[in-house]
Amino acid sequence: MIKVGIIGSTGYAGGELVRLLMGHKEAEIKWYGSKSYIGKKYYEVFQNLFQIVDDKCLNDNMEELANEVDVIFTATPQGFCSSLINEKILMKSKIIDLSADFRIKDVNTYEAWYGIEHKSPIFIKEAVYGLCEVNRDKIKKSRLIANPGCYPTCTTLSLYPLLKEGIIDINSIIVDAKSGTSGAGRSAKIDNLFCEVNENIKAYALTNHRHTPEIEEQLSYASGKDVKINFTPHLIPMNRGILTTAYSNLNKEISYEEVKEIYDKYYSEEKFIRVLDKEVFPETKWVEASNYVDVNFKIDQRTKRIIVIGAMDNLVKGAAGQAIQNMNIMFGLNETMGLTQVPMFP
Amino acid sequence: MIKVGIIGSTGYAGGELVRLLMGHKEAEIKWYGSKSYIGKKYYEVFQNLFQIVDDKCLNDNMEELANEVDVIFTATPQGFCSSLINEKILMKSKIIDLSADFRIKDVNTYEAWYGIEHKSPIFIKEAVYGLCEVNRDKIKKSRLIANPGCYPTCTTLSLYPLLKEGIIDINSIIVDAKSGTSGAGRSAKIDNLFCEVNENIKAYALTNHRHTPEIEEQLSYASGKDVKINFTPHLIPMNRGILTTAYSNLNKEISYEEVKEIYDKYYSEEKFIRVLDKEVFPETKWVEASNYVDVNFKIDQRTKRIIVIGAMDNLVKGAAGQAIQNMNIMFGLNETMGLTQVPMFP
Amino acid sequence: MIKVGIIGSTGYAGGELVRLLMGHKEAEIKWYGSKSYIGKKYYEVFQNLFQIVDDKCLNDNMEELANEVDVIFTATPQGFCSSLINEKILMKSKIIDLSADFRIKDVNTYEAWYGIEHKSPIFIKEAVYGLCEVNRDKIKKSRLIANPGCYPTCTTLSLYPLLKEGIIDINSIIVDAKSGTSGAGRSAKIDNLFCEVNENIKAYALTNHRHTPEIEEQLSYASGKDVKINFTPHLIPMNRGILTTAYSNLNKEISYEEVKEIYDKYYSEEKFIRVLDKEVFPETKWVEASNYVDVNFKIDQRTKRIIVIGAMDNLVKGAAGQAIQNMNIMFGLNETMGLTQVPMFP
Amino acid sequence: MIKVGIIGSTGYAGGELVRLLMGHKEAEIKWYGSKSYIGKKYYEVFQNLFQIVDDKCLNDNMEELANEVDVIFTATPQGFCSSLINEKILMKSKIIDLSADFRIKDVNTYEAWYGIEHKSPIFIKEAVYGLCEVNRDKIKKSRLIANPGCYPTCTTLSLYPLLKEGIIDINSIIVDAKSGTSGAGRSAKIDNLFCEVNENIKAYALTNHRHTPEIEEQLSYASGKDVKINFTPHLIPMNRGILTTAYSNLNKEISYEEVKEIYDKYYSEEKFIRVLDKEVFPETKWVEASNYVDVNFKIDQRTKRIIVIGAMDNLVKGAAGQAIQNMNIMFGLNETMGLTQVPMFP
Repeated sequence: MIKVGIIGSTGYAGGELVRLLMGHKEAEIKWYGSKSYIGKKYYEVFQNLFQIVDDKCLNDNMEELANEVDVIFTATPQGFCSSLINEKILMKSKIIDLSADFRIKDVNTYEAWYGIEHKSPIFIKEAVYGLCEVNRDKIKKSRLIANPGCYPTCTTLSLYPLLKEGIIDINSIIVDAKSGTSGAGRSAKIDNLFCEVNENIKAYALTNHRHTPEIEEQLSYASGKDVKINFTPHLIPMNRGILTTAYSNLNKEISYEEVKEIYDKYYSEEKFIRVLDKEVFPETKWVEASNYVDVNFKIDQRTKRIIVIGAMDNLVKGAAGQAIQNMNIMFGLNETMGLTQVPMFP
Repeated sequence: MIKVGIIGSTGYAGGELVRLLMGHKEAEIKWYGSKSYIGKKYYEVFQNLFQIVDDKCLNDNMEELANEVDVIFTATPQGFCSSLINEKILMKSKIIDLSADFRIKDVNTYEAWYGIEHKSPIFIKEAVYGLCEVNRDKIKKSRLIANPGCYPTCTTLSLYPLLKEGIIDINSIIVDAKSGTSGAGRSAKIDNLFCEVNENIKAYALTNHRHTPEIEEQLSYASGKDVKINFTPHLIPMNRGILTTAYSNLNKEISYEEVKEIYDKYYSEEKFIRVLDKEVFPETKWVEASNYVDVNFKIDQRTKRIIVIGAMDNLVKGAAGQAIQNMNIMFGLNETMGLTQVPMFP
Repeated sequence: MIKVGIIGSTGYAGGELVRLLMGHKEAEIKWYGSKSYIGKKYYEVFQNLFQIVDDKCLNDNMEELANEVDVIFTATPQGFCSSLINEKILMKSKIIDLSADFRIKDVNTYEAWYGIEHKSPIFIKEAVYGLCEVNRDKIKKSRLIANPGCYPTCTTLSLYPLLKEGIIDINSIIVDAKSGTSGAGRSAKIDNLFCEVNENIKAYALTNHRHTPEIEEQLSYASGKDVKINFTPHLIPMNRGILTTAYSNLNKEISYEEVKEIYDKYYSEEKFIRVLDKEVFPETKWVEASNYVDVNFKIDQRTKRIIVIGAMDNLVKGAAGQAIQNMNIMFGLNETMGLTQVPMFP
Repeated sequence: MIKVGIIGSTGYAGGELVRLLMGHKEAEIKWYGSKSYIGKKYYEVFQNLFQIVDDKCLNDNMEELANEVDVIFTATPQGFCSSLINEKILMKSKIIDLSADFRIKDVNTYEAWYGIEHKSPIFIKEAVYGLCEVNRDKIKKSRLIANPGCYPTCTTLSLYPLLKEGIIDINSIIVDAKSGTSGAGRSAKIDNLFCEVNENIKAYALTNHRHTPEIEEQLSYASGKDVKINFTPHLIPMNRGILTTAYSNLNKEISYEEVKEIYDKYYSEEKFIRVLDKEVFPETKWVEASNYVDVNFKIDQRTKRIIVIGAMDNLVKGAAGQAIQNMNIMFGLNETMGLTQVPMFP
């Protein structure tokens, strides 16, 4: 039985870790860390867990926690994990960090986009970017995982085969993304009030969303060249779900069947990536509450472009689900353990 | 392994049966019955099941189906199950009918409220009303289950202990209910279009909703007397969830603690009924996608009334979940098998 | 041209006052008062008013404001208006208070339910409860209006004719109310975040909602007797709209036609109260963005009860619209001026 | 007083025409045409108009109607207006067609994208594309207006100044659009049911949406060259609103101020086009229920692209509002008459 500690268990991603781990046969949560609710029963924060979890919220003392568990999930704001992590902790416990602290290899890029100083750049090199389908082997041997961001997971998995195979013009990529509101977190802000979000759609963080360099880095690894993209996220009046619509010029004439073959080459064995049937395009509702990413593409012969659409649940494959998938890989378990939920519809 | 057939598998309740049964270790679906999609792949109707279910939709031939399975779920409109059922079928397969056909013992009442002739009244007496927590023993021995309606499940379980113990005035019960829109089914009607439901709330079926006699019958069993209620359902702009707010005059002065004890007497051992902590009242979001019913009450000393609130997911405990719970009981399995999902939040 | 000042213009009710007054031919806003946004352009708070309002937000100095305007609207939290009002102000400017400070005639009741001390009880007697259709004549001569609460407006207007005519048992009234989330105001609270409200319904303030004594007082005036009710509000995942479902025992056998006649007696000349056709029941969407209250009723012969449903836009007839209607009456204008918007659908 | 007839008055666009015309001082509706509701009171279809409109729905006999009115609005499916129109009708009444029948000048393009034969190509040349801010002078003299599509209005007005001034690479334009569900019309389809749309986002009509050639034609007029674009619409779980996010490569280095000047050159005198302040980007909620289009742009120095965002209410500026604006121009009225509603928030 893997002993688990969660720091930041009372946010939306933390709550989703708890929901999913309750159904995981080889893991048990030993520490419900929180900043705002220390001493309170966890179910009083998330009443869905009434009569399921009886523990109280503990503090976020990572040193102490490392003594008691085999793996720590940090579902905390940027800068938090990197400010606490040290060699002593890592020798005792594996860490899966759901924040961006260890995702970007170039510390200057991190500091420029996030506007904060990185407190433990020494661990950046060691950290493995936990995009399971791409870095599975490295994850197996890692003790520190940088769990990918929600937008980067959906975008990178959507475009990865095309870049690996050099099908698209890397200077032409535009990603127009849409996310449900749980991606904005559980803090009390006027912008996220029901009446502000409901019956509304807006773009935000134009040209400067922090997931941009993370996506660019991953796409660059895939293509072997330096990729720059436009990335524009939009806030959608729904709780869960991310849809990414990516546009790119094709490098050459290519048929549906050829592109389909490329996707199958990379993904036909992947349980959690579903390349849909021809002319069936992803919808967030079809993956809700599950660890699936649905992907499909269409070639526009008129404009010589390809459009690739990806959909997933931002709290599952985009956060807690992928974190557990990483844990499964790190501990040598079946990768899908605790993650076989059928998507919920409607 | 229990072999399962579903008639009406392409409606919302049918789809939920499939979602839940995919996670049930002792059941496998052998027949995806449908009226509108015969011959089509099931996942083409519900794309969430892509790469999970590969079967095609079959017809609704109950006789043939009975040869191949151990239990048939009928998630069909009123009148359908009663028009097909016969002794031959029942000798081969158990039936769990999610429609109202066998819920009401008095056939005249059924015909008056539903406005159709009952085609097989002969089986009404044999049928067991599948409110698991109340009729568990009878369900065990039954071959024909009338799976309770969504509103009746929530209302009856909310009020049951009070009526058993004679705490409330049976002539004063008013039930104001609110339901998400999946309760209206998956047929194409202008009234259920997104733009008609969204940003709107309305009452419907005032004084004549068909669940009224079903609720009254169950409350009458509990109290031993003839109960008549007012029942007013409202349509809420959300997919899932039922909330019932019930009002009744108290028969005598009684304290919170005394009433709490009564609820505990009936429900403390019930996994799926959660009586919440004092002053914490049910919200549909806290039970979403799970088989729980959350219940709590408040005594109003000013008016000498008690208010009881119940919440559940109409597609789970209000339909498919309770149907599976009934199957578990009928086949001697652990009653919670396949039904231990943690509610999803947010 | 009536000069208007608004204190609390940056909340939802304040914003609605501005929206409606922009279309009012005889009023112009001279003062956009705010607590949090002083010095900021008003349109930067409510971007819908870009290129429509160019003023900056001013403070909430009521004394100074009274020198510059003919009428002050206070769309502020409880206790604010009563803490600032004085005779000097009232001699210079009329006041329409959208808070509860002057709605309840018994100061002890106010202090008990609101949990705060009333700072200027001296003006309570003078204040006129601005339920226009009921108190029109008093409003004409008033200089201080207590603008009714949203729930009380909808509930009182729904039940008023029945109580005036003694049709219903005053000890049996139960009001189950449902409100959109704008009723909760524009302050940053976790409970009102999109993800907490969306796909959810809950009851709140069971047995102790502050609008209870206000409703009871108005119903008591109508009936001439002391009315006590149960009032249970519910939060609905929509922006605007209130629906009240009221239940009461009938004092005697009575037909639909007789009750209809009673409603017509009181409301047939009222522009803003629409008694719907037989068997057509109010929906909030049919009154959205307008000053209408839609009302209808149904008699249940089985239980000898009457059910009365009312619907209105909580920000219009339930707040800003009725406040402007009061202003029109006070200043001798056509009562409907600036309030003739057709409800928006969908 | 202009006498107005509406064919297709019982759809969402038709209903919006009625809502807006009720507040128009120089127009009165003489004919509520419908296909499905002939003989029924109009308010029975749209209950928001109870006690406001008392007329019955009439048929869609355009010949007869032309005798009685000065202008006919056809809010009908593609192919309808072109199948009925003739010289006799046009001699008696002006026509503002809200369908696509007369928007595209090349009949082959129309027939290829719409998949139907055009029944009166003879009038295509005469028809004026009613994009008011662009074709104002032609509209004045026209008797047949092709009222622009919703997506084309928002897209074209967003990009028009950039194309007129040759700022952007016409081969690089990508338009990612998002629309509320009222754009899908009021017909009963499973795809538009509440439970299918709510908590979901999807792209649709990839590479082949019918508004593509309409947008391309308008952008080509603006640029003087043949423009081909990618256009991808998405369905958003909200009733009203369109947001378009357009991406294009810049032809040269250019500053924010220079681009702002270009927008001001074309739009500073336009009442209904609001170019927002720097770094403030359009949201659909800020224009809801009004005739405004909000526009803003951002230059991405990293990728040498410009991103332009437009937002409007699809039923107002995207349909009924612009149709009335066209009517005002055709009849020499103040162009804003009946269209000065302040956007509704929240």
